[in-house]
Formats: sequence, C-alpha cells, structure tokens
Amino acid sequence: MLRLYDFLESGNGYKVRLMLHRLAIPFELVELDITKGETRTPGFLSKNRNGRIPTLELEDGTCLAESNAILCYLAEGTDLWPAGRLARARTLQWLFFEQYSHEPFVAVARAWRRVFGMTPEREAQLPGKMKGGYQALDVMEDALTGRRFLVDDRFGVADIALYAYTHVAGEGGFDLARYPAIRAWLGRVATEPRHVPITWRPADHARQAGSPGAAPDPVFT
Amino acid sequence: MLRLYDFLESGNGYKVRLMLHRLAIPFELVELDITKGETRTPGFLSKNRNGRIPTLELEDGTCLAESNAILCYLAEGTDLWPAGRLARARTLQWLFFEQYSHEPFVAVARAWRRVFGMTPEREAQLPGKMKGGYQALDVMEDALTGRRFLVDDRFGVADIALYAYTHVAGEGGFDLARYPAIRAWLGRVATEPRHVPITWRPADHARQAGSPGAAPDPVFT
Repeated sequence: MLRLYDFLESGNGYKVRLMLHRLAIPFELVELDITKGETRTPGFLSKNRNGRIPTLELEDGTCLAESNAILCYLAEGTDLWPAGRLARARTLQWLFFEQYSHEPFVAVARAWRRVFGMTPEREAQLPGKMKGGYQALDVMEDALTGRRFLVDDRFGVADIALYAYTHVAGEGGFDLARYPAIRAWLGRVATEPRHVPITWRPADHARQAGSPGAAPDPVFT
Repeated sequence: MLRLYDFLESGNGYKVRLMLHRLAIPFELVELDITKGETRTPGFLSKNRNGRIPTLELEDGTCLAESNAILCYLAEGTDLWPAGRLARARTLQWLFFEQYSHEPFVAVARAWRRVFGMTPEREAQLPGKMKGGYQALDVMEDALTGRRFLVDDRFGVADIALYAYTHVAGEGGFDLARYPAIRAWLGRVATEPRHVPITWRPADHARQAGSPGAAPDPVFT
C-alpha cells in the first residue's frame, strides 16, 4: 500500500490526499508535525532530503517529493491528466504558477496566522504576502471568468493543485468576496465526485464507513 | 517561427534558450527589460497575465508561461524527456524543487546583487536568502554525489532547469568550492552538445556564423 507522510493542515498535503481519494487509491497516512521538527529527523531526511511533507512512499520504498510532482505521477493515465500536449503544458504552467506565485503568499500568510503564529518579523513581511497573494488571485479570477475549470474546461490536476490553498485563503486573511469567478469555481470543485475536506484522513473515512447507517466505501472497507 | 520574450540575465529565460538551441529549434528573441517594467505593459500582460519572462509565443499566437512548463513542452517526444513514469516524476520533483527551494534563494540573491541592486530592506533579508540557497545546494550535492546527472544518470530537462541558476550562484555570493559533486556536474552539463552561455541570443550566433572562419550553423544560417 502507498504511504503518505503528511501534515493535515497542509494544503500541499491535501492536494495529494484529495487526488488519492478521487482515484480510489488506498493509502496509509503517517502524520508528521511540521511545527515540532518531525520532518527534519534523520529518519525522515533519508526519505526526503529536502525535509518536507507531503512525501509519498511507493510500495518498493521509493519516495517521491513535491506535491505537484506527486499529483502528476498519480494522474498519469487517468482522465485528470490531459491528453493534449498544449493542455499538459497549460496544466504544468498552472502548477508552477501555484508554487511560485500563489503558495508563497496565500499559503504562507495562512500558515503564519493559523499554524506557526505571528511574530514581529512576520508582521513586517505580511503586507508583501497579502499583495502577492491578491496578485495571484487576480490572475486566477481573469483565467476563470467565463470558464468552468482551469484547463480545457474540464476538471483536472490543475484544479486540484490550485483549489488546495485557494479554498482556505480566507484563513490567511484574504477576502474572496471580490472574486466571483473563483468562488463559483471553488463550488464546482467541491461538488466533484469523491471530494473530501482538507482535514480528511483515511482513518476518518474508515470510522465513518464502520458507523451505523454509513454507506460502505469500496476502498477503505 | 517561435518567439521568446526574455531578459538575458534571467536564468529562467536561459533555461528556455538553452533548450531551444539544444533541440535546434529556431526562434525569434524579443528582449524585455524587467528593471523598466516592460513585462507589466498592457500589451505584454495580454500575452502573460502574470507579467513575467520567459514567455514563449507559438506560431498561432498561443503564449506559454513558466520556464519549467515551457521546458517540459519543448522536451516532450525528445530524448531529454524521460520515457519512464518514475523518471518523469523525479524530473518534475527537481523542477518544483528548483522553483520553490532553489530559485527564490539562489536566483533572488543574484538578482539583488547583479540586476536590481541592494537596498537596506534587501540587506536585511539577504542572510535568509543565503541560508535557503545553501540548503538547496546541500540537497543537490547529496543527489549528485556518485551520479553523473540528476535523473536516471542521463542528461535531461532537470539538468537544464537546475544548471541555469546554479552555474551563476557565485554571482549571488554563494561559494561553490565546498560542493565538488555540483562542480563536476556543472562541467558535464557545459560540455553537452550545443551548449551556449547564459547571455547567448540567436542574433549573436547568427553574427558568429557569418564571421570569417566560423563554422556555419545548421539552424541559424
């Protein structure tokens, strides 16, 4: 079985959990607390030299890092990975945009407020984070105006990658009220089959599935 | 003919120029000065809403952004793009590592020192940039120890992407003397066929090809 090293509050980790569940791929979740240095231990560094979650361990022990690289690996050969060369390039364009122009602002502002806590140094940097985050949201709003999904108007890898931190941008202090196209897209992504919330873990699902009246899940039961 | 919007000092742009020349794909270079706001004009924003170089304009006017997405687009179907699923995932892992853990430190320190100039605010942030850059170089040194290239021990997209800013890390104040595996790898990449330096532009090559004694180039003459 695949094993995912992850931290539930992480949008980067959530991308991978959402993808795995969407594709009905069972996996073991190993939770590491990034606020306590659990991704910088010698044992974990032997799995990911860069010391970050999410890290996906394949059945032969091979470990893959970088959330968006993991998404592409999992999506290959499924209908979430575009068949056309240009659509693949556009998908990758959105994934690199996410890691360079979106995550360092939207996700970091959220992480400071919600996970790590504010310090005077972070307070000083926060206006720059908010400005960069709004610039990224502006780009998304324009791209989604008149479109249902980010690439080729069908749900795919790019939507999963961008949804992860955009849907919790409010927790970073971003006001999505001014972004009607983004809000409509968030709603569409959330109603895709097998959608799960950011704090979802497979164990939760197994418990739900085992509770009275719950429908059995084909993967986790 | 393809048209590349670029800024010669940019390692992100250099990746694409190096890839295009390696693949013997002719292109027109349109140089934009990022220090003068030339990537934030309405005309350029209509090509790349995120206002960044490099941006590749295809023959039908379609524009692709994000240097590493452009690399993948160009490499598909060539021997620079791995045939195996795991090697493709590893390649993408290195590309996302480059944009998240390497470029924001190694390239930004260089850009401040060389292109934009230091300010008191940048001086205050520089120690963090140096620390992050050395962490990225440590990861590369470990990965390249005992290996000729980053993925599957053969030259490919990941090497081009990581070479771009690593080979000029010294201009950002980084000391590569402590990284023998990185230095040996830089030497191997630089002796690959059709290698060109970071400030290369097709017009230079055309001029060289037309000068007395220069060998004619199959692409640009």
